[in-house]
Amino acid sequence: MITLTLVGIGTGNAKHLTLQAIEALNQSDLILIPRKGPGKDDLAELRLVICNQVLQPDGPVIHEFVMPERDPAIANYETRVQAWHSQTALVWSHGISQHLGNRGRVAFLVWGDPSLYDSTLRIADRLASTMATQVEMIPGITSIQTLTAGHAISLNELAEPFIVTTGRRLRENGWPEAVSTVVVMLDKGGAFTCIDPAGVDIWWSAYAGMPQEIKIAGPLQSVSEQIVQTRAVARERHGWIMDIYLMRRRSGTALA
Amino acid sequence: MITLTLVGIGTGNAKHLTLQAIEALNQSDLILIPRKGPGKDDLAELRLVICNQVLQPDGPVIHEFVMPERDPAIANYETRVQAWHSQTALVWSHGISQHLGNRGRVAFLVWGDPSLYDSTLRIADRLASTMATQVEMIPGITSIQTLTAGHAISLNELAEPFIVTTGRRLRENGWPEAVSTVVVMLDKGGAFTCIDPAGVDIWWSAYAGMPQEIKIAGPLQSVSEQIVQTRAVARERHGWIMDIYLMRRRSGTALA
Ligand SMILES: C[S@@+](CC[C@H](N)C(=O)[O-])C[C@H]1O[C@@H](n2cnc3c(N)ncnc32)[C@H](O)[C@@H]1O
Ligand SMILES: C[S@@+](CC[C@H](N)C(=O)[O-])C[C@H]1O[C@@H](n2cnc3c(N)ncnc32)[C@H](O)[C@@H]1O
Repeated sequence: MITLTLVGIGTGNAKHLTLQAIEALNQSDLILIPRKGPGKDDLAELRLVICNQVLQPDGPVIHEFVMPERDPAIANYETRVQAWHSQTALVWSHGISQHLGNRGRVAFLVWGDPSLYDSTLRIADRLASTMATQVEMIPGITSIQTLTAGHAISLNELAEPFIVTTGRRLRENGWPEAVSTVVVMLDKGGAFTCIDPAGVDIWWSAYAGMPQEIKIAGPLQSVSEQIVQTRAVARERHGWIMDIYLMRRRSGTALA
Repeated sequence: MITLTLVGIGTGNAKHLTLQAIEALNQSDLILIPRKGPGKDDLAELRLVICNQVLQPDGPVIHEFVMPERDPAIANYETRVQAWHSQTALVWSHGISQHLGNRGRVAFLVWGDPSLYDSTLRIADRLASTMATQVEMIPGITSIQTLTAGHAISLNELAEPFIVTTGRRLRENGWPEAVSTVVVMLDKGGAFTCIDPAGVDIWWSAYAGMPQEIKIAGPLQSVSEQIVQTRAVARERHGWIMDIYLMRRRSGTALA
């Protein structure tokens, strides 16, 4: 039996690691680390830095693997993603067989929290359907928490709901009905320019929690253009970017 | 100048603490800890356990204070909450003046993450309006992450949005429009019984992350009654309960 432990590592700050995550990494026999393509190497690098910092000398074996790319020839989005999950599960199972055979504990360092817009769990479930595998998860600090902490703001208004969505959804569907707070992730850039900015405030962070963190906040009307430009420049400069933002509609009645 | 640092401590497991949280606690001069009323003493206790575990010998002073109660005589909800924030800010400022005068670092151990359905930030902002204060936040593991990790599930469906809401809202407004995933917090009990259970799965956790954790999952139709009963028994037995759940509408098209 193989146990796969998906360990949330937080979003770019090695100090986001929890005591539980450190323990889980040290208790594993093997750690699988993806070597990402060019541009995102900072992120692959952070995983190694974390391993160096927290693993005991007699700790697990570290196995780096090349992450398969999504196949652009597959037109349908879901089919393309599923094919990519299968391929990745195959690469994992090779790494696991090579080092452990069919028993032992394998850990993955998952960016942020493993439950939030991350494919590792889906790939693990895929693997579990082909070999005797048990999947465990260790929670991690999400980019949502890193965003709100960086700006020292609440996620929700008092006892009010909030929605978390993607840039693509915001572009397609506009402001979601019946909520005053929207968090947007996975935005390829500036989806907030597609909504009516009147009465909306935004809190935006790029590289949240990392040394190169950039934060901009204010009325959407005033800062929208500044965010678009800052994002383009930063992306050019670092070769990659990850950003997240919270938008809130002001209302006369809501408590600050 | 006083710096107030709101430190997320996770949701009941002392190992949810991050390295950043441990550092922030040790760098503070004073830690304010609420002594909660009867029934919730387990939670106040955990804060002291955490302090004992992570503070250096020459660490901060710990000051326990009695948390004011909300005044049931104030009928309007928002007015009642605001009065309670003001009163609590006053109690804090007494504690701070007594130990630090008007300069130093004060830390609060906040359940879960300080941005998620928590009043500490609002009280801190209230205090900041009466004395020279800077507010900082350290992110923490939320009960949402503890829920999903415990059940080893994803929060979102592939690239889909999700909403986080309260028991009261779910009762009042039913299933929110246009989302297939709903997370419910702050439920006084069984708000899920108010929605049509057909095609809905639920993942429910009480005392998530704690030794007495209880988990139930399945089609809402089959487990609804079991959750209601389990909750009542557990609440009776422990004298208090905190629970959270995720519900997902099955659809033919969504990826598992
Ligand atoms: C594939 S998702 C992974 C999310 C991750 N599991 C989490 O818990 O935050 C990637 C998206 O998360 C957000 N994100 C993750 N890390 C971030 C960071 N350090 N700064 C800003 N946004 C970040 C961005 O919206 C990015 O498009
Ligand atoms: C006042 S809110 C605080 C939330 C906290 N700041 C967080 O990040 O999770 C309290 C609600 O959080 C949820 N909650 C917090 N801790 C929990 C736990 N250990 N198990 C289950 N639910 C929990 C419950 O829905 C509860 O009603």
